[in-house]
Amino acid sequence: MADIPVRKSVRSRNDEIAAENRGRFREAGLCVVNMLSSPGSGKTSLLERTAAHMKDRLRILVIDGDVETERDADRLRKAGLEAIQIQTHGSCHLSAAMIAEQIATVDLSAYDLLLIENIGNLVCPSNYDLGEARRVVVASTTEGDDKPIKYPEAYHTADLCVLNKVDLLPYLPFDVAAFEAGARRAKAGLPILQTSCTTDSGVDAWCRWLDDQVRAAEA
Amino acid sequence: MADIPVRKSVRSRNDEIAAENRGRFREAGLCVVNMLSSPGSGKTSLLERTAAHMKDRLRILVIDGDVETERDADRLRKAGLEAIQIQTHGSCHLSAAMIAEQIATVDLSAYDLLLIENIGNLVCPSNYDLGEARRVVVASTTEGDDKPIKYPEAYHTADLCVLNKVDLLPYLPFDVAAFEAGARRAKAGLPILQTSCTTDSGVDAWCRWLDDQVRAAEA
Repeated sequence: MADIPVRKSVRSRNDEIAAENRGRFREAGLCVVNMLSSPGSGKTSLLERTAAHMKDRLRILVIDGDVETERDADRLRKAGLEAIQIQTHGSCHLSAAMIAEQIATVDLSAYDLLLIENIGNLVCPSNYDLGEARRVVVASTTEGDDKPIKYPEAYHTADLCVLNKVDLLPYLPFDVAAFEAGARRAKAGLPILQTSCTTDSGVDAWCRWLDDQVRAAEA
Repeated sequence: MADIPVRKSVRSRNDEIAAENRGRFREAGLCVVNMLSSPGSGKTSLLERTAAHMKDRLRILVIDGDVETERDADRLRKAGLEAIQIQTHGSCHLSAAMIAEQIATVDLSAYDLLLIENIGNLVCPSNYDLGEARRVVVASTTEGDDKPIKYPEAYHTADLCVLNKVDLLPYLPFDVAAFEAGARRAKAGLPILQTSCTTDSGVDAWCRWLDDQVRAAEA
């Protein structure tokens, strides 16, 4: 496509700003996790559950990206988290510059963990580094087991895969082994956790993973 | 963002090619429907069902867009449809130029209906006219009822909304009235059909809608 050279320069500018963000996060000892998924995979529900498990022992900030509405940040504030909403009004991904603008006036050392909920989009956000330490792809059983092979970049760039909505497995033609094989074809050895925000199943393992990342950032 | 002026020129070039495509479709009396959705909403399953209902009385061609794999076109060939697969290898939407390239060597007058299954992405494809006569947004009950207000452009530019996977409603916290209100806030009067590809419920109404569009294109 005609715009590829321009996109490349946009991306390399993004990478510069992401590196600056990463420097600020490191300096503050702040663990930053960028969460990618399709629309409606349950990222916000997982963060509500995360709040219930962790908010009393970790200082958590969320930056929430959506094309429109403040809805997700409102849900997370109700769940007891501090949340900043970015509305992109059409843009299909968060960029490092959008994050830089939001953190400019934040005392990052006041937090242990920054969770960034990216725009629901399994394609574009995987190309934009935000300066995070870890990237997580959240999949939902209702999307079908072939998504890792159809959207490999989101899986290839992830450090963890969360397979959410496993409570619905009895009602779906979803092959967990095929899903896991596809995810690991995109990224060899990718750890995969199964969760349900309806039953709370697996949320403890997700929180232990977050704890490990927070400890690594502080070290 | 820095790349907005460039994107505008890319889009206006896209619109020129889309107008050329539209001219070719009109000349051939071919009805063209562009289907948008999140990943895993069930577009391919709906097309499999459509094949079962319509392939003996309509000449149907499908152009299938995916980031990677020939999987969906393979599924539709097994269902008895002629299908062309476009693999974008990273690009987040189909463009008018991609369609033009595929139809260059096709005798369009040999078909009554061209169904274009766009990349699973609720943001970017809504900005790219392919030359279609009608645009359909396919939603899934498992995505949550707030998607129309969070991704309004896909709904605003649609002529029909299909709410798929209604067989799962008993297991989901999904408010149909809230979904419909959101969809019609994005586009006043948007017709909404409920379908299940598991039970075949509502597929007859979807096929009647397609029949009406085919007749309009022939008139």
